[in-house]
Amino acid sequence: MAKTDKPDHKSKIKELRKKVSKLRKRLDRVQEAATTVTEAPKGPLVSPLAPVGGMPPLPVIEGVEISACAAGVRYKGRTDVMLARLAPGTEVAGVFTRSATRSGPVLDCQAKIGTPAGEDGAAFLINSGNSNAFTGAAGDASVQAICAKVSEVLNIPASRVFTSSTGVIGERLPHDRITNVVQDLADTLSPDGMADGARAIMTTDTFPKAATTTVELDGKEVKIAGIAKGSGMIAPDMATMLVYIFTDAKIAHAPLQKMLSRLVDPTFNSITVDSDTSTSDTLLLAATGKADAPEITDLRSKASKDFSEALEAVMMNLAHQVVRDGEGATKFVQVAVTGADSDADARKVAMAIANSPLVKTAVAGEDPNWGRVVMAVGKSGAKADRDTLSISFGDILVAEKGWVSPEYREELGATYMKQQDIEINVDLGIGEGSAIAWTCDLTNRYIQINADYRS
Amino acid sequence: MAKTDKPDHKSKIKELRKKVSKLRKRLDRVQEAATTVTEAPKGPLVSPLAPVGGMPPLPVIEGVEISACAAGVRYKGRTDVMLARLAPGTEVAGVFTRSATRSGPVLDCQAKIGTPAGEDGAAFLINSGNSNAFTGAAGDASVQAICAKVSEVLNIPASRVFTSSTGVIGERLPHDRITNVVQDLADTLSPDGMADGARAIMTTDTFPKAATTTVELDGKEVKIAGIAKGSGMIAPDMATMLVYIFTDAKIAHAPLQKMLSRLVDPTFNSITVDSDTSTSDTLLLAATGKADAPEITDLRSKASKDFSEALEAVMMNLAHQVVRDGEGATKFVQVAVTGADSDADARKVAMAIANSPLVKTAVAGEDPNWGRVVMAVGKSGAKADRDTLSISFGDILVAEKGWVSPEYREELGATYMKQQDIEINVDLGIGEGSAIAWTCDLTNRYIQINADYRS
Repeated sequence: MAKTDKPDHKSKIKELRKKVSKLRKRLDRVQEAATTVTEAPKGPLVSPLAPVGGMPPLPVIEGVEISACAAGVRYKGRTDVMLARLAPGTEVAGVFTRSATRSGPVLDCQAKIGTPAGEDGAAFLINSGNSNAFTGAAGDASVQAICAKVSEVLNIPASRVFTSSTGVIGERLPHDRITNVVQDLADTLSPDGMADGARAIMTTDTFPKAATTTVELDGKEVKIAGIAKGSGMIAPDMATMLVYIFTDAKIAHAPLQKMLSRLVDPTFNSITVDSDTSTSDTLLLAATGKADAPEITDLRSKASKDFSEALEAVMMNLAHQVVRDGEGATKFVQVAVTGADSDADARKVAMAIANSPLVKTAVAGEDPNWGRVVMAVGKSGAKADRDTLSISFGDILVAEKGWVSPEYREELGATYMKQQDIEINVDLGIGEGSAIAWTCDLTNRYIQINADYRS
Repeated sequence: MAKTDKPDHKSKIKELRKKVSKLRKRLDRVQEAATTVTEAPKGPLVSPLAPVGGMPPLPVIEGVEISACAAGVRYKGRTDVMLARLAPGTEVAGVFTRSATRSGPVLDCQAKIGTPAGEDGAAFLINSGNSNAFTGAAGDASVQAICAKVSEVLNIPASRVFTSSTGVIGERLPHDRITNVVQDLADTLSPDGMADGARAIMTTDTFPKAATTTVELDGKEVKIAGIAKGSGMIAPDMATMLVYIFTDAKIAHAPLQKMLSRLVDPTFNSITVDSDTSTSDTLLLAATGKADAPEITDLRSKASKDFSEALEAVMMNLAHQVVRDGEGATKFVQVAVTGADSDADARKVAMAIANSPLVKTAVAGEDPNWGRVVMAVGKSGAKADRDTLSISFGDILVAEKGWVSPEYREELGATYMKQQDIEINVDLGIGEGSAIAWTCDLTNRYIQINADYRS
């Protein structure tokens, strides 16, 4: 029996060795990322926080076809335009940056997003390399030219074509390079194209971002899959977050939009890399209605709640991936605030901590510097009381009742901070309000990417 | 005649050579500061933005005596406690951090600041090395012990003793080390002690900060002199700003406080190094009333306006010095916003730009990245219109009417950004609101000071 087991042992050992080798390589990449701080960034170094297995296998979602190609908008030797064709009747919901200087494509999407699909199909066209932001009337004309071309080739109304642009700002978008490839994109549309799309929308992201899940509604499976880009940047480019989520669920326009707007606060609006808000942030959700599951019309129904939960999981996964690709990030940080006077106050505190350069540099330095957390609580503007405040790193109680906890030892905190994923927990001891925010650390590499390197 | 002139020429040449040598040494220090970014900070490297001549000569202000000594609170081989004795009748006004987690000394000062002097004298006692912040009831007891000791030795009520502490937070203040030296401090009080005071209150400041001016009120000279510390930091210390200003002007308590509160917004509240607000920020103004000039009682009088202007100049000078000693700073940046819907909106925009890590890293990289300025305007929350916005670097018009200016050439901006002092001017083109903010750039050295280095 021992003998017959041997081959299994061998294959197990082989498997483990492979794993070790894989992890060593990963470690090398991490160390490279941590130590090459004095040189200019050389190509797309992979974030040490990237998901280990790469992108998950992405499903076919009926009613969604995607293609990508290299239009040469700015980058050479890679794809930079993605087209998604959405079946007739697909409802599209969207959430956009609130920046007062938002880009032409964002303004155009916002004008179109409120209309239900009716019998029409829809399309998303996204380019990387140029954000078409702060480009005046010429920028608006570029948006119209692209929408008109897609409308003509796919035979759908221009009012159902949603575009996004991401990359350098203030430079005229060479939109003819995009309109020239729309026919090619249309000819190569494929139900399997989503992973190609995720790669085409990257700017200086170090890995493509995708997430997927399924959920049963009244015994029928519904699929959700999304892709995102964000947090990569080359001066003078601007980090922008773009997210596209597709589902075969059938949901009317109004509840779809309402659900998306509600879920964006605890997910994408709760992440921060550097507190700087893009001019182009765009999140689009397309529901093709091709699944067998019955239509969701009432947000209070069980089906709606189940779907909403699954959608939130995909959004959260993508949001976390954006943080994990934060510029120069070496640590993933969760800030959880409880006991606040209100949820809004809790959010203020969580974001003050997550955006504090002193907290973020302390995390980078693996320094359990709880004094800086106290400082961030104090400056947040939320109601707080020194003497009811308590702070933990993970499960380690650091400070309570207005001072360091009697059980706390600096070694405990220092050991904890060596982890890659850090949890900072703050209880204000005042009320029932709570919030969670996610961020990454602030390292030399952030400065290097945004200051030392000139494109 | 030429001959008799020669010795003068020689001494002039000698003088100039000295200057050249001095400036070369300075340049070396600057270059060292700019290039030693991969090593841990070694002692107090002087900021490249430090005033060339060092501290100005500080005047004797009648009614003010200052001393400093080494109490060994935390640092070795340097002074760390300063005492100021203020003559009977000296009015004291103050402005403090609004942090919800402010320190014990701040809370104590705030409780005392509202009371006019009457016949009593007053005292300031400041220590560096320990901020006595977030130290609970023990911290409050330390404040009481120090005030009681100063009160006893100087024979003034404890309610007229104002203390500040700056340095590491969350550690118990060894206040006996301070009370032990109060008698020595009292014995060495001197009208010439202000420069010593400026040095004693430094934490990791790279230079002591002082400013002085005189103003004639009804033909009689009044002196103003102040000292400040701020923006230096060693983990786990916390940057705090402390400012003490002395004048021999005679001003009643209420108008003095009113004037100070009004002047703090356009000066200290308009500077930012890293958007993180201290738990200990303190600004105290003492008016001894010993000058010959008549008492200021009415804030609308010419004398009041003249004095206020002089006081503002000293406050502004000190505020700028704090920015010029900002952690890792290599550039001094003025952000001027005009044409806003209101002054409050202009301030929002100015601070959004001054706090943006993307703008500050661009300045560090000498990158005329106006797109990031557009981004910061957009995220500020102020009313803005892409198409009326204009941006200049110094006198160079960069962007107008929603796009890059037709006359702008990247070389112009790139050359401008090589200067040490940078002006970013934004006109929103909407209304009459205006504001100015000052900041420094964000460099590798900031990260190094706050992450790489562990005390």
